[in-house]
Amino acid sequence: VTEDEIIHNVILSAVEGLSLSKDDPDSERRVIIGIGDDAAVWQPSRSHRSVISTDMLVEGVHFRRDTMSLEDAGWRAMAAALSDLAAMGARPVLATVALGVPAANAGAEIMELYKGIAAAARRFEIAIAGGDLSRCDLVTISVTVVGEVRSSNVKTRAGARPGDVLAVSGALGAARAGLQLANQPGLIGGANSDAALEAFRRPTPRIAEGRFLGASANVTAMMDCSDGLSTDARRLCEASGCGAVLEAVPVADSARGAAERLGEDPERFALAGGEDFELLVTVRGRAFRYLAGRYEKRFRKKLLRVGVLRKAPGVEWRGAPLDRSGWDHFA
Amino acid sequence: VTEDEIIHNVILSAVEGLSLSKDDPDSERRVIIGIGDDAAVWQPSRSHRSVISTDMLVEGVHFRRDTMSLEDAGWRAMAAALSDLAAMGARPVLATVALGVPAANAGAEIMELYKGIAAAARRFEIAIAGGDLSRCDLVTISVTVVGEVRSSNVKTRAGARPGDVLAVSGALGAARAGLQLANQPGLIGGANSDAALEAFRRPTPRIAEGRFLGASANVTAMMDCSDGLSTDARRLCEASGCGAVLEAVPVADSARGAAERLGEDPERFALAGGEDFELLVTVRGRAFRYLAGRYEKRFRKKLLRVGVLRKAPGVEWRGAPLDRSGWDHFA
Repeated sequence: VTEDEIIHNVILSAVEGLSLSKDDPDSERRVIIGIGDDAAVWQPSRSHRSVISTDMLVEGVHFRRDTMSLEDAGWRAMAAALSDLAAMGARPVLATVALGVPAANAGAEIMELYKGIAAAARRFEIAIAGGDLSRCDLVTISVTVVGEVRSSNVKTRAGARPGDVLAVSGALGAARAGLQLANQPGLIGGANSDAALEAFRRPTPRIAEGRFLGASANVTAMMDCSDGLSTDARRLCEASGCGAVLEAVPVADSARGAAERLGEDPERFALAGGEDFELLVTVRGRAFRYLAGRYEKRFRKKLLRVGVLRKAPGVEWRGAPLDRSGWDHFA
Repeated sequence: VTEDEIIHNVILSAVEGLSLSKDDPDSERRVIIGIGDDAAVWQPSRSHRSVISTDMLVEGVHFRRDTMSLEDAGWRAMAAALSDLAAMGARPVLATVALGVPAANAGAEIMELYKGIAAAARRFEIAIAGGDLSRCDLVTISVTVVGEVRSSNVKTRAGARPGDVLAVSGALGAARAGLQLANQPGLIGGANSDAALEAFRRPTPRIAEGRFLGASANVTAMMDCSDGLSTDARRLCEASGCGAVLEAVPVADSARGAAERLGEDPERFALAGGEDFELLVTVRGRAFRYLAGRYEKRFRKKLLRVGVLRKAPGVEWRGAPLDRSGWDHFA
């Protein structure tokens, strides 16, 4: 038995039960062949579209070992990929995972990564259908997710029109606040710190919210707010061929609390800090109040209005063009 | 315009025309939303199964820059993933690509990688539907491919029975011979060297062969021979709960020629050297001659008989158990 095979078995046991969820009577038909053959086989149901997305996390770029465990990094990689499904209004079906891990302690590190990956997979009901492993001096995690969505519920970034309301699925800035706290552990303390660190280490893709919003004919465009409201609002506007005026930037309580400790502007966390994985949507003006009411009843939180779409390009905030300040991995 | 966006545009132009192939009247319906949104959307046709597989290449593990260009590495990553579709009898539909590239010369290196990726995508008619990019000290390439196959044509590794003929889709060893020559460039010379180097740098996934063999009810199991005949024959036998006796190891002409120059055993190249991406199949004994005849007529090369399946476990070669000698990336 080679070490490769031991690792393969470790993965098989880590993801056992994930390939075929027993709660879902359809899953056996959907994932026909799972891990162990050359490729996984599944059949999407007939009236649905399949959706695919890939996300990559690299040690030293997207996470550092001194501020995030490998288990959290595994969760985070899965969450980032799942968030793209949420943004299309899709239901998660299956994922493949390619891991690069240093040779020195490969077995234990792969196990730790998969603990986080499998926890996210269980929580958001996605099967792990296969993957690949390689030695690599830095930990790299590439996750590809496949989902399904009713054809009529697919939401792109391009459907927004002037007059539509711009809204987010929840308050922003907690993940960025958590990152700053993780970098300055001396400032950690209290419930707000815990909540911000959790948002940074175990972000929640808004799968249920995305499916709910995707199912509404009054939602005209949707994307995940993964690079910060300022960057992502501009992207949505450009794809839709219009602009927007921001009226309010909703800051998460934990981000506000952490900003105070850190001596930072909480609004900056919300505008520039991405990776909260909240959804950014546009809603027909006349329908917003009704949809927001249904949303609040369903999710016990508000669909937060942040502005309104306009004809003129660009995103305006407090009377001035909003500058871009998202993540730039090559900067 | 940030450097991230320049790179994004470079990729968009590199893969332009790949998302929607004009030759295929169905492709517009199949890939509904391509690069640029949160996720790609497609719809497999109704009577078909979807198939997914992921492969990862890492600089210093799967390729070295002194023996392989980044363009070749891009081709190779795509070829390795496509080979898994071939092994399922599937037709390629779409791919996602996650690239890690050093910051120093990122734009040019991404472009070079994508030249190879796009060349393979064009050759094997697969759309590039999305992906991700990150700074990474080593070049890493993760390719996920999705294909379709008629439900009745799916071939796993587990269907072989005692008495079936074991065969390969072509002669073996050229890619390993090419690797050795690339490591000892002083020994390169003549047509055999060129052919071996080509097999190493631009391997061909056997998509057409896989679809042909998958469509035969007399093919009982199929896999790609990517880790060497000795390792992969054992895997197929274990998955099928039987064993095999090897009768012949077909060595590619170029591998034989290169082995002579290198002073190596050409059979070892064929047994231990993987990554030729030939397919390993089992065929019902009585049907082999007929199928091999049709195969030769169609592909102008032989379906090569290498042995026969038996009840007793293990793989035998020249009266002794064959040892394993595949690749072990953590060894």
